[in-house]
Amino acid sequence: MSDTLFGPDNLPYGLFSTPDRPGHRRLGVRFGDDVLDVGAAAAAFGSAHAEVLRAPSLNPLLAAGRSVWRAVRAEIRAWLTEDAHRGTAAGHLLPLSGVRLHLPFEVADYVDFYASEHHATNVGRIFRPDSDALTPNWKHMPIGYHGRAGTVVVSGTPVVRPRGQRKPPNETAPVFGPTRRLDIEAEVGFVVGTPSEQGSPVGLEGFRDHVFGVTLLNDWSARDIQAWEYVPLGPFLGKSFATSVSPWITPLDALDAARVAPPARDFPLLPYLDDGAAGGEPGGFDLRITVRLNGHVIAEPPFSTMYWTAAQQLAHMTVNGASLRTGDLYASGTVSGPERAQRGCLLELTWGGRDPLELPDGERTFLKDGDEVTLSAWAPGPDGSRIGLGEVTGRVAPSV
Amino acid sequence: MSDTLFGPDNLPYGLFSTPDRPGHRRLGVRFGDDVLDVGAAAAAFGSAHAEVLRAPSLNPLLAAGRSVWRAVRAEIRAWLTEDAHRGTAAGHLLPLSGVRLHLPFEVADYVDFYASEHHATNVGRIFRPDSDALTPNWKHMPIGYHGRAGTVVVSGTPVVRPRGQRKPPNETAPVFGPTRRLDIEAEVGFVVGTPSEQGSPVGLEGFRDHVFGVTLLNDWSARDIQAWEYVPLGPFLGKSFATSVSPWITPLDALDAARVAPPARDFPLLPYLDDGAAGGEPGGFDLRITVRLNGHVIAEPPFSTMYWTAAQQLAHMTVNGASLRTGDLYASGTVSGPERAQRGCLLELTWGGRDPLELPDGERTFLKDGDEVTLSAWAPGPDGSRIGLGEVTGRVAPSV
Repeated sequence: MSDTLFGPDNLPYGLFSTPDRPGHRRLGVRFGDDVLDVGAAAAAFGSAHAEVLRAPSLNPLLAAGRSVWRAVRAEIRAWLTEDAHRGTAAGHLLPLSGVRLHLPFEVADYVDFYASEHHATNVGRIFRPDSDALTPNWKHMPIGYHGRAGTVVVSGTPVVRPRGQRKPPNETAPVFGPTRRLDIEAEVGFVVGTPSEQGSPVGLEGFRDHVFGVTLLNDWSARDIQAWEYVPLGPFLGKSFATSVSPWITPLDALDAARVAPPARDFPLLPYLDDGAAGGEPGGFDLRITVRLNGHVIAEPPFSTMYWTAAQQLAHMTVNGASLRTGDLYASGTVSGPERAQRGCLLELTWGGRDPLELPDGERTFLKDGDEVTLSAWAPGPDGSRIGLGEVTGRVAPSV
Repeated sequence: MSDTLFGPDNLPYGLFSTPDRPGHRRLGVRFGDDVLDVGAAAAAFGSAHAEVLRAPSLNPLLAAGRSVWRAVRAEIRAWLTEDAHRGTAAGHLLPLSGVRLHLPFEVADYVDFYASEHHATNVGRIFRPDSDALTPNWKHMPIGYHGRAGTVVVSGTPVVRPRGQRKPPNETAPVFGPTRRLDIEAEVGFVVGTPSEQGSPVGLEGFRDHVFGVTLLNDWSARDIQAWEYVPLGPFLGKSFATSVSPWITPLDALDAARVAPPARDFPLLPYLDDGAAGGEPGGFDLRITVRLNGHVIAEPPFSTMYWTAAQQLAHMTVNGASLRTGDLYASGTVSGPERAQRGCLLELTWGGRDPLELPDGERTFLKDGDEVTLSAWAPGPDGSRIGLGEVTGRVAPSV
């Protein structure tokens, strides 16, 4: 167990079913290559939190608040690691290979940010070569927009190549058909547990109380559809066909050893975003992401390079009084580091399709039907251990 | 009853409670100045649809599909109008003045369109005076974006003036504070009942099967926040603090007599948006909207002038394979006609604040604390009758 990414310091939550009872969805905690049926274990151990752990969704636990999150986490860790409990817990461990994993929570609102300076700069240069790469607002606020919550799907769900309008250069009218520029975006998603009241902003210091955990997220993007539609109201159909998330939600508490200071900021921040003076914990996370295309590593984006932190995004998203709901999901935006091999989408990796990637199975600019993309990540854990984030994978299905 | 806006040809649905049982939310149908407790009536009449009518939300009826919508509507109409039933029904009518109205459905995803050519042209001239008023894509697709579902509130909910970043002209850095340009947008919202599968577009012809009904909607907007944030990913905090809807959802079937042809289109439409050849019912709705500020009429926007129809918006929103969920809400965008007195927001009515409105209580550019805005509307009904849409109202509360 010592070298696993899913040891006793990780304990991410998911939702599973077994082939003999496909309609019976149960909460599970990943432990090595097994899943602990936490509802059954809670009953066996007489846990005071059996009710939230026996729910067919993570939402009741998300809504229960930070003190319950911590108590439940300590309890589950004890079941799995203490001599007096391990035997009982073992009776509720199932091999991961034998279960089906589902979307673990009901997504309320989904917001996608744009928080990597390297990504935003590269995209600006590719999409708007005649303008400054970064818009004037970019270093004053974490730019974001709402996405479609109803098309957030769990890892493994096929992604049907979307159709839509694109306008070929040198033509005046758009044409319609399957996207020719299907792309990925390697992102980190944050899952809100504790709701907030409309009209009451959640400040930087509210991050720990409101955000339950972290998931990997692939924000599939159709670049030709997006390029034609996105002025003036932002991305819409170029994004809304599918967003894939990992089946595992890693609690924030598992990432304490991964907290790092964000990069130095170039402009003074308004007080509601200023995390320099707060004296609190560092706002960044040292997550090392790997992007694989048909099994081949195509990028290793470092989350520690993100200009805007998840706490700043939360503060910004609510500063106008917008409320949070249990199940809100917000994502970092594409994670790209300064190096070419650290870019989190094909648009950047191939510079808008100009510089194809050379893969063992041929050149690639954008995704072909049948391509499979997998994101994985790990973070430093306590005492030199590693905390794995659950993988998110998806295969491109042809347009129907 | 003959001159009411809420006669037997209307019958909109809402959700209400009474002061003696504030936690007991029940479905109601508005009939004149009364509310029919349809759950209680369904029990009394032994309706086959009692289960959906006794739910504490409109969602189960929305999900039941068009054949149930039609059957239930015919049944309720019979209870209220046939001699054999009226006496029984009368026992389940409550005065509207004695009930509290709630948000009648759980909003899944919320999308806001931008479908008035007059509005988009005016806004383009005000926000982007150095560019073409309409972007090149505008006449090829209904431009839209996702909004925040969690801050959709029912009519009567106070709207707290949002705070946020704005960048004064001639300064390089933004300042923070309460918006100085709080605005309204008079819109019509469409409520989705029947869901669709991810990967399966809903065509123009699917409008009647998927859309249950219509509501008035006020898309409150902070213009200074919006102007600074919206490039490149679209409106975010300038909109997400509150969106108000009427407590009454008028079934599409009540608006048959209001169907009108949309304006002539200037460019050929791609087949999935081309409603000219379909030979189906006209895509527009002849809804006459009135906007009141502190009781004074400030605009009368005609919905019949909208360039893009609700059926086209539905077809566009799903053409990339995005699924629909029960409770999805999509709005038309600001309704503005060609005349100044037909413009549906203060930004246009005052031309960006340059030309104040003269009201009995003083000049107005944007909204002051304490201001109350009310949208109302009616449409032609059968035999010269009128179908009223439920009002949506909101008062501005000061920043906290």
